[in-house]
Amino acid sequence: MNEQEQTSRAASLGRRQGKAGAQVAEVSGKALGRMVGAFMKLPGIGRKSAERLAFAVLGMPREEAAGIAQAILDLKNNSRYCTVCNNITEEEICCICLDVRRDNTRICVVEEPSNILILEKSATFRGRYHALLGAISPLDGIGPEDLKIDGLLERLRSGDIKEVIIATNPTVKGETTALYLSKLIKPLGISVSRIAYGLPVGGDIEYADENTVQRALEGRREM
Amino acid sequence: MNEQEQTSRAASLGRRQGKAGAQVAEVSGKALGRMVGAFMKLPGIGRKSAERLAFAVLGMPREEAAGIAQAILDLKNNSRYCTVCNNITEEEICCICLDVRRDNTRICVVEEPSNILILEKSATFRGRYHALLGAISPLDGIGPEDLKIDGLLERLRSGDIKEVIIATNPTVKGETTALYLSKLIKPLGISVSRIAYGLPVGGDIEYADENTVQRALEGRREM
Repeated sequence: MNEQEQTSRAASLGRRQGKAGAQVAEVSGKALGRMVGAFMKLPGIGRKSAERLAFAVLGMPREEAAGIAQAILDLKNNSRYCTVCNNITEEEICCICLDVRRDNTRICVVEEPSNILILEKSATFRGRYHALLGAISPLDGIGPEDLKIDGLLERLRSGDIKEVIIATNPTVKGETTALYLSKLIKPLGISVSRIAYGLPVGGDIEYADENTVQRALEGRREM
Repeated sequence: MNEQEQTSRAASLGRRQGKAGAQVAEVSGKALGRMVGAFMKLPGIGRKSAERLAFAVLGMPREEAAGIAQAILDLKNNSRYCTVCNNITEEEICCICLDVRRDNTRICVVEEPSNILILEKSATFRGRYHALLGAISPLDGIGPEDLKIDGLLERLRSGDIKEVIIATNPTVKGETTALYLSKLIKPLGISVSRIAYGLPVGGDIEYADENTVQRALEGRREM
């Protein structure tokens, strides 16, 4: 989905929610209508999925449904950003920052804390992370000063770091942010790298877009 | 998904939830891990979707997240079955049963209250409904006595009804239930009909299974 589509989707979301909620409320009661409307606020959940989820909650044992409600409240009340790397944590400093077994000489920079989870799953990187909590986007009025870049520079100046791996998204925003950071970090005498572009593993070259194919060719490695 | 797959899915669900929750909890805190586990209890939500939803809840304004939690609690506390037709409602009797504009001579019998919503969306039927809250399934030990059939017969004996439309699912259970009901209802002098089998609208005959094609041929209508 491109950004224009996202905007128009956001604009129509209110209407859709209102209408869908109203019909469900008419047939199956207001509480179910409100539940459908609430689920539709989540990403990737349309009217049909929301209805299915609402009926599923209705069919659950009471304790299980209450458990979901409690998990939502706990999540909002207890979770915060790690004061070092902006990962999600319930303490002042997150588990990854506290883990003494990890490599102190490498920092992987990502846009969002959720990206840290994705990278951890690949189990390839054993250094530290830094989440910027966004990406540079002049069109949305988001400049470098809106990102957690100061904290990153502070960490870099503190000494140990030898390499910064920039793992911002492969989008215009992510690319702009990566370029900006590399210009900022290189003068500190620290090596800066960018994660590779290329064909997704298991993908079919026939369905890859031309930009990806171009990058995959440019990034080719001798076998 | 067939029933065997459902059983094996249910069996592995606990393991999957535990493992996924553990990894998320390790990286992004226990509250987020619990949220992922809670979302995975919903149908059609796997590990990846659950993580995406959990991060979405985390990024929501606090009131909006609390709204979802409240909607879940309200739904479980306020919703009940209509004492007439077993639809979901917050009152003693649901809106459809109370609606004086609807046709009192037709009852559409469905398995679950959620089916009523689907039928109402088609805006084709303006009669009354009756949800059985299940279907006959000897393998699962569910017999006619476990369904809300007594209430249906009581409604049929009360007078006005001229036609019963059986809209149970096009499955073995639904079909068994339909047959059982038709044998029970016909002696009352009430016409019994079954919703049609055939190709789904917008579907491609190439992808239809042979049973559906067979039923579609049998059910052909002169043009």
